[in-house]
Amino acid sequence: MAVGNEKKVRILRALIRDEPGFLGRLAQTIGEFGANIGDIVKLRAAGDFNVREFELYFDSDEQIELLLRQIESLEGIEVDRIYDPVLEIHRGGKIRMRSTVLVERIGDVRKIYTPGVASVCEAIHRNPELVYDYTALGSSVAIVTNGTAILGLGNIGVHAGLPVMEGKSVLFDRLVGLSGIPILIPTRDVNTLVETVIQIAPSFGAIQLEDIAAPECFEIERRLIEALPIPVMHDDQHGTAVVALSALINATEATQQDLRDLSIGLVGLGAAGMGIARLLDAYGVKEILGSDVRKDAHHRLEELGGRPVDLNTLMAEANVVIAQTGRPGLIEPQQVREGQIILALSNPYPEIQPKAALQAGAAFAADGRFVNNALGFPGLFRGALNARARRITQEMKIAAAKTIASFAEPGELVPSLFHPDVHHAVAESVEEAAYTSRALAAEDEPLV
Amino acid sequence: MAVGNEKKVRILRALIRDEPGFLGRLAQTIGEFGANIGDIVKLRAAGDFNVREFELYFDSDEQIELLLRQIESLEGIEVDRIYDPVLEIHRGGKIRMRSTVLVERIGDVRKIYTPGVASVCEAIHRNPELVYDYTALGSSVAIVTNGTAILGLGNIGVHAGLPVMEGKSVLFDRLVGLSGIPILIPTRDVNTLVETVIQIAPSFGAIQLEDIAAPECFEIERRLIEALPIPVMHDDQHGTAVVALSALINATEATQQDLRDLSIGLVGLGAAGMGIARLLDAYGVKEILGSDVRKDAHHRLEELGGRPVDLNTLMAEANVVIAQTGRPGLIEPQQVREGQIILALSNPYPEIQPKAALQAGAAFAADGRFVNNALGFPGLFRGALNARARRITQEMKIAAAKTIASFAEPGELVPSLFHPDVHHAVAESVEEAAYTSRALAAEDEPLV
Repeated sequence: MAVGNEKKVRILRALIRDEPGFLGRLAQTIGEFGANIGDIVKLRAAGDFNVREFELYFDSDEQIELLLRQIESLEGIEVDRIYDPVLEIHRGGKIRMRSTVLVERIGDVRKIYTPGVASVCEAIHRNPELVYDYTALGSSVAIVTNGTAILGLGNIGVHAGLPVMEGKSVLFDRLVGLSGIPILIPTRDVNTLVETVIQIAPSFGAIQLEDIAAPECFEIERRLIEALPIPVMHDDQHGTAVVALSALINATEATQQDLRDLSIGLVGLGAAGMGIARLLDAYGVKEILGSDVRKDAHHRLEELGGRPVDLNTLMAEANVVIAQTGRPGLIEPQQVREGQIILALSNPYPEIQPKAALQAGAAFAADGRFVNNALGFPGLFRGALNARARRITQEMKIAAAKTIASFAEPGELVPSLFHPDVHHAVAESVEEAAYTSRALAAEDEPLV
Repeated sequence: MAVGNEKKVRILRALIRDEPGFLGRLAQTIGEFGANIGDIVKLRAAGDFNVREFELYFDSDEQIELLLRQIESLEGIEVDRIYDPVLEIHRGGKIRMRSTVLVERIGDVRKIYTPGVASVCEAIHRNPELVYDYTALGSSVAIVTNGTAILGLGNIGVHAGLPVMEGKSVLFDRLVGLSGIPILIPTRDVNTLVETVIQIAPSFGAIQLEDIAAPECFEIERRLIEALPIPVMHDDQHGTAVVALSALINATEATQQDLRDLSIGLVGLGAAGMGIARLLDAYGVKEILGSDVRKDAHHRLEELGGRPVDLNTLMAEANVVIAQTGRPGLIEPQQVREGQIILALSNPYPEIQPKAALQAGAAFAADGRFVNNALGFPGLFRGALNARARRITQEMKIAAAKTIASFAEPGELVPSLFHPDVHHAVAESVEEAAYTSRALAAEDEPLV
């Protein structure tokens, strides 16, 4: 069934006469109008009718309008409502701050609030390190955005971006048990953003920067890492980079090559592209090519020792191509080189469809759906917080990438997001790498 | 049993031989050392022994040391451990941001995160009001502190104050289903605090200021209310005031007086005292006296039309005395006037013990334990958010106070914090008052 990003989804709730043939007739009608059917669920009986919900995938609003009109003319079928299940899931938001302690009588309140809580405050006042023992500080991560680069949608503002931040928070909760707190700061001014985050940083165990446009994102992240004694990471740069590195480790192992010896071409040198470039450099990759429409992007790559080229040269020379441009269909099939490894990561529309890349001769091809950054950031932050690291080093990111890679099934680039052990294992390897790298020391503190 | 604020509490876990007499001997020994016993819980059997936990209330660490030594000499009793249950409840913190949606397979992720979430972002981008429908914004409250006036402990810093903020968050969750997000901003500079809160305000549906020292708290609250289109309230001023007004409404009803006609004396004109003064003024009270050690406090009261006096004059003239000074025992029993209503609200040690005030002739007396501000703020914020109010008006606070008062049992000043309906009822009355007062209009928007 061709159910992809391109299709729209709606739930059709209908009353269907409880006699043989009526359900079939409705399903047939839906099919005739070119809509695909996902789940069909019986909600309840209602007299001589059953109430059922059909999950419908279709191409245009017009198509569904015509379908609805046709259904209305069917005997024994009544449409109750049609709704968008994605919007419905989001109703009221996706997150809630919850108490983890029981509060059922006044004695409980007197322990967790005044007057009992005073003894806990005093204990932390005497020994500041205890804040990690007796508060949730060490398991909270601010998810900070200024709304300037929300998904591939661009500068749509912080409120329009909030569903993404809540989505990250959901993943933090479900995958590694951390509290992700959306923090929306609607400014394009680097100083204002940096100063604001510094002021509120004591509220959190770590800071995740999210969907902040390049090039500001580079300066913002650098200044916050320098200023704060807690981990700060721009996920669009480094979360994606970690998962891309995992995929590359597996892809090159499958083709019996050493990633370090290959020429890597980065199409797009924005946040994600530069994050990948830096991580590959730290990993030991010797040749990094890059193309971008912006001149300042080329300078950033040169500073790292990479070589800016145009897209044609890149496609002709690189063994591995990683695209992150937000420009669907940018790469033509005829530009693909025989045996190339291609990761076209822009969401939701890749620079080249994996199928087309494979047909054009690529040895491996994947889009952003399979190289999901949600494989990286939860375990990275959990590990950094478990170690009480002051920063997230390249060693920690590489440890995460190797661990993720090791969990992939044969023939897969990365494991499933719901692999039962992967996030826990990533956290452990990141924690270990924190101890062995400079992650726990202050910048000016000598390592003995 | 004399179990009050003054006593320390510890849990003693011991193995006790499972034969008649041993439990009694231990209980007797505890009694001989002057410690009170709360609950005794049997955890499990362990061979010939039972593992039990005793809740002990005692006066000093010395006392417990001596007791432990004595217990060790008892035959058939082995102490396993002794611990502070208040600290233990706080281990790991008291709150956690949780997902409210099911995420069990990759299809779920594709709805709540990329790519599906993009359609929700676009819907909000087209119609900004939808942020209240499709995110948790409208049920989130920032709990903002700078750590300068944590309980009665003073300027102990934001991390030492975090257990209080988490306690507030627990109460928001349990009592009215809101997300309370602790935001710690460790600055004494008013401009920095105000600017920082303004920058992050789009992250929240409302702002609760908490444990910020006077006199800065007045300017901070005023400037934030002016600058922001969402409700801002300093709980130490207004939450306490609302509950104090509830108590006064009931106390004066019981003595068949009209609160508006009485002379009210405020001992202490800090955050709480001034909050009460302003609310009583809005309620229609004609004579407000006040005493404070600080001169600027007297000026603030005069601006409101109140009369600054010394403590002796206040005690001699006022029909109702409300003390909020943080100074235990400030009011002498001989200062109490016959028939006076006295609320000595400082936590954990009141200005005069209610028992002593009643003995000295007061008609009513209560301390801060019974006039818990947790009766006020949850319903106030829930109601303001339900109405999507731009501010919390005096009308809304008075509505909350009247509703709280109406739920008290005969002979009580205020209802139990766990009355099953009170918070919901407060929210409803606050929401209604928001519609009928200027709470929904912008400052510069004329009310038709």
